[in-house]
Amino acid sequence: MKSKKTLYDQLFELSKTIKTLTSIEYILEWDQETFMPSAAVHFRADQKGLMAGHTHKLKTSTKFSHLLNQLIDLESGQVSDPSLSSAQCAALREWRRDHLRAIKIPASFVKLFTSTCAVAGNQWIEAKKTSNFSLFAPSLTKIIQLSRKKADLIGYQDHPYDALLDLFEPGMTCARLTPLFDRLKVALTALVKGIKTKDPIDTQCLKGEFNSDLQMQFGRKILKAMGFTPEDSRLDLSVHPFCTPIHPLDTRMTTRTHHDDIMSNILSVVHEGGHGLYNKGLNIEQFGSPLGEQSSLGIDESQSRWWETRIARTKAFWTHFLPLLQHDFPQLQKVQLDQFYPAINQVRPSFIRVEADEVTYSLHVIIRFEIEKALIEGSLKIKDLPAVWNQKMHDYLGITPSKDSEGCLQDIHWAFGHVGYFPTYVLGNLYAAQFFHAFEKAHPDWQSRVSKGELGFIRQWLHSNIHQYGRQYTPEELVMRISGKPLQETDYVNYLNSKYKEIYHL
Amino acid sequence: MKSKKTLYDQLFELSKTIKTLTSIEYILEWDQETFMPSAAVHFRADQKGLMAGHTHKLKTSTKFSHLLNQLIDLESGQVSDPSLSSAQCAALREWRRDHLRAIKIPASFVKLFTSTCAVAGNQWIEAKKTSNFSLFAPSLTKIIQLSRKKADLIGYQDHPYDALLDLFEPGMTCARLTPLFDRLKVALTALVKGIKTKDPIDTQCLKGEFNSDLQMQFGRKILKAMGFTPEDSRLDLSVHPFCTPIHPLDTRMTTRTHHDDIMSNILSVVHEGGHGLYNKGLNIEQFGSPLGEQSSLGIDESQSRWWETRIARTKAFWTHFLPLLQHDFPQLQKVQLDQFYPAINQVRPSFIRVEADEVTYSLHVIIRFEIEKALIEGSLKIKDLPAVWNQKMHDYLGITPSKDSEGCLQDIHWAFGHVGYFPTYVLGNLYAAQFFHAFEKAHPDWQSRVSKGELGFIRQWLHSNIHQYGRQYTPEELVMRISGKPLQETDYVNYLNSKYKEIYHL
Repeated sequence: MKSKKTLYDQLFELSKTIKTLTSIEYILEWDQETFMPSAAVHFRADQKGLMAGHTHKLKTSTKFSHLLNQLIDLESGQVSDPSLSSAQCAALREWRRDHLRAIKIPASFVKLFTSTCAVAGNQWIEAKKTSNFSLFAPSLTKIIQLSRKKADLIGYQDHPYDALLDLFEPGMTCARLTPLFDRLKVALTALVKGIKTKDPIDTQCLKGEFNSDLQMQFGRKILKAMGFTPEDSRLDLSVHPFCTPIHPLDTRMTTRTHHDDIMSNILSVVHEGGHGLYNKGLNIEQFGSPLGEQSSLGIDESQSRWWETRIARTKAFWTHFLPLLQHDFPQLQKVQLDQFYPAINQVRPSFIRVEADEVTYSLHVIIRFEIEKALIEGSLKIKDLPAVWNQKMHDYLGITPSKDSEGCLQDIHWAFGHVGYFPTYVLGNLYAAQFFHAFEKAHPDWQSRVSKGELGFIRQWLHSNIHQYGRQYTPEELVMRISGKPLQETDYVNYLNSKYKEIYHL
Repeated sequence: MKSKKTLYDQLFELSKTIKTLTSIEYILEWDQETFMPSAAVHFRADQKGLMAGHTHKLKTSTKFSHLLNQLIDLESGQVSDPSLSSAQCAALREWRRDHLRAIKIPASFVKLFTSTCAVAGNQWIEAKKTSNFSLFAPSLTKIIQLSRKKADLIGYQDHPYDALLDLFEPGMTCARLTPLFDRLKVALTALVKGIKTKDPIDTQCLKGEFNSDLQMQFGRKILKAMGFTPEDSRLDLSVHPFCTPIHPLDTRMTTRTHHDDIMSNILSVVHEGGHGLYNKGLNIEQFGSPLGEQSSLGIDESQSRWWETRIARTKAFWTHFLPLLQHDFPQLQKVQLDQFYPAINQVRPSFIRVEADEVTYSLHVIIRFEIEKALIEGSLKIKDLPAVWNQKMHDYLGITPSKDSEGCLQDIHWAFGHVGYFPTYVLGNLYAAQFFHAFEKAHPDWQSRVSKGELGFIRQWLHSNIHQYGRQYTPEELVMRISGKPLQETDYVNYLNSKYKEIYHL
C-alpha cells in the first residue's frame, strides 16, 4: 500500500501537469494578443479549445478525484493523514474546493457557455460600435440565464449571485459585499461632491507628444526598478494592457501607448507590474499546487492597485522618477513636482471605467455589481438595463451617458460571460488599503526611501506577507493576518479622504 | 455499421487533433527562440515534454491504429474501400507509413533518446566553445549507438543508415544516394578547382555598416514581394534563422542581422521565405491530413533553396531590388549591378557550412553524409572522426580546419540526435534544379518578369506543381511528374557549371 506522502506527491504531480498545460494556454492567449498574425484567429480558437478540453478532462478525471479523496474526504473536507503539514492541509482544502466546483459543471454546459460567449462577443462588438444595445440584448439575456444556471449547478446558501462571486473571490457573498459597498458608496459620493465644489486641477503640464518607443523604454525602466529583469519577464504592446503569469520565471506584461498621453502608459505598466510581481514572487517549488497560485482575483488586484495607486501616484515616487522622465522626454522639462503630482491625481467624473480616476473608479464598479446582482436574482430585466445604468451614473457620479457605448456597453466582461468578476476590482482597492496600513507601520520611512528610488523593500514586504504563501491562506485569513481586522472599507476611505482633501484643499 | 466515409472523417479528425497539438509545440519552439525570457528555459522543457508525450500517445493509440486498419490494411497496405479517391488513398498510405514507424519506437526509447540529447546538447556547447572534441565524444558515441538501435527498431533492407534516411526523406536509400553524391562530388570538386585558378572576385562593394532595424524592414519588403502579408506571417530576430510552419494562415520566419554584412540577412530571409511559402501554399482544407503537409524535408529544402539561390542570387532579381536596397541603404548607392552580382556569388572554400557559397555547400554536406554512414555501419570509430573530417575537407575543398570547432564540432545536428538529416540539404538543391528546369520551360520569360519585380507567377507555379498536393505524391513521384526524370544530379551540375563558368570566365 502506498503511503499518504506518496499519494500527496502523486496528486501534486497530476496537478502540476494540469497547471503546465494551463500555462501553455496562457502562452497561446498572450501570443494572440501580441504577435499572432490576425488571419490565424480561427485556428487559434481550435488550438485553445483543444487545450481547454484536455485540461478540463484531467481536472475532472476520476484519477484526480480518487487521489484527492484518499487525502481529504471530498464530502466532509477532513484531511485523513495527521502528519501532513498545515500548508499541505491548506493545499488539499483548495484542491478540494477547485475539484468539487469543476465536477459540478458538466462539459456540455461549458461548451454551451463557450459557444454562447463566442456569439455574444461578436454581437457586443457590433452593438458597441453602433451604440445599439438591442443588438447585444439577446446574447446578454442568454448569458444571464446561463450564469443563473451555473449558480444553480454550483449551489449557494443565500443568493444565487454568491455562487458567481465565489468563482472569482472565494468565500465572498452578497451579504458581506452589499453593506460594505453601500457604505463605500456613501463615502465616495460625498468626496466626489466635495471635489466638485472646487476648481478643476490644471493638467496642462502633462500635455505633449510622446514617442511610443521611448514610452516603452521608460516603462521597462520602471519595471526594472520594481524588480524585474529581461531574463524573467517581458513588456510588449497590446490593445488592452494585461499580465500573463506563465511561471514565476516567465511573466509577460503588456501595455499600450497614446501619442498625446504619457501617464496612461506609465500607470498601466506599473499596474501590470504589480500583478507581475505577485506571479514572480510565488513559490517556484510549489508551482502546480495551490500553494504556488495567487490567493484570489481580489488579492491579485490588490497588488496591481497597490503599485499603481499607492506607489506610482505618490509625490515620493515622482520625486525620484520625474527627473528621469524629463530626461527621456525633454518636452516635460519645465514641469514642477508641485504641478505634476496634483495633475496626475485629478478627479473628474467620467463615463468610461478604465479611464476613471482613483476616487470615482469604485463607483463605476459598484454600479456593475448592483446591476449584476439584480439581473441574476431577476429583479431587473435586460430591457431596463440601459435606463438603470444611466440613472445610477447620474445618482453616484452626477453625469448621464448620452449613448450606451459610453454606458452599459463599454465593458467586454459580460460578453465573456464574466458575471461576478467586477467586484474584485473594488476588493483589490480595499485589500490594498488594509495591507498598506500594515506596511506603513513596518516602514514608517517608506516615503523617504521611495523618494530615493528604492522600491525593493516594498516588493520584499509584499513577498514575505503575501506572495510566498500562494493560496495557503484564504483572502479573508490573509487580510486578518496582515491587518488584524476583517475586510472593511475604513482604511480605503480614510486614505482617499486624506489624500484628496489635501490635493483639493477641502 | 459505420460507412467507410465516416471512418475516414474520424481518422482525419483524430489526425487533425494531433496536428493541432503539434502546432502548439511549434508555437512553444518559436516563442523560445524569439521572445521567451531566458530564465524560463527549464520550464519550457517541461511544457514541451508534456505536449510531446501527449502527441506521441495519440499517434500510437489503439484508437488511431484501429481506425486506420479499417481503412487500409496495416500489413499489406491494401486500401479496403474502392470508392475512396486517389488523393484519399495517398493520405492513407502516408498515415500508415507514419503510424507503423511511430509504433516501432517504444516511448521508453524516445525518452532515453531525448534525455541523451539533452546531455549531448550541453556537452556539445562546451566542446565547441573550447574546441575540445573529447568533451563531446562520449555523448556522440551514445547517440550513434542509439541511432543504430533506432535503425534496428525501424528495420531496413540493405543498410542501417537507410532507416535513418527514411525518417527525413521517405524512400531514400544509400544505394541511391551514394553513387549520386559520388558523381556530384566529382563535378563540384572539378568546378571548385577551376574557380581556384581564377582571381578572386572583388567583394569590396558590399562592405559597409547596416542598421539592424532597416535590415529587418527590407527583409519584410522582400517577403511582401514574395507574397506574404502581415496578416498571415511574421519575421522576427533569432540566433539562427528558421521558419515555423504553424498553419497555412500562420507562418513565422526568423532571421539574424550582421552590422557589417547586408547579404547574409537578405539571403536568410528569402531562404526562410521559401519554406514559408510552401507552408502558406498547403491546402487549408487538408490541415491535419498528410495531404496538407510538406512532402519531405528534401522537398521543403528545395523550396527554400529555390528562392535563395535560383531567384535571390540572380541578376534579374537584383535588377529590380538593387535600386530599392540602395534607397534604404544609401551607403550602397554607387554599387553597379555588374559588380554586385558577381560579389554576391563569390565562391571561396571555407570551413563553416552555413556560411558556404553555392558551389562548395553540397561538398560540406557530402562529407557529413559519408561520415554518418560510416559511423552507423561501424566502419568509422568516433575517436577517428576529427581526422577523417579534416582529411575530407582537404580532399574535397582543399582546406584543412585548424581546430575542431571549425571542423567536426560546428553543427548542432548530431547533438540533437539528427543522424540522417544532412543529406536533405543536398537533395533540396537537386530537386530545385529539376523543378527549375521545368519552370523555365513553362516561363521562358521569367528573367524579364523578375527584373520588373514580379514574383507572384513563380509562387503560383510552385503552388500548382508542388504546394497544393501536400504528401499526395512521394518526393520521387513529384520529381518524376514535374521533370519527367527520376532524381539525378545532372540539372544541378549543369546549372552550377553554366552559372559559375560565366561569372568566373572559365
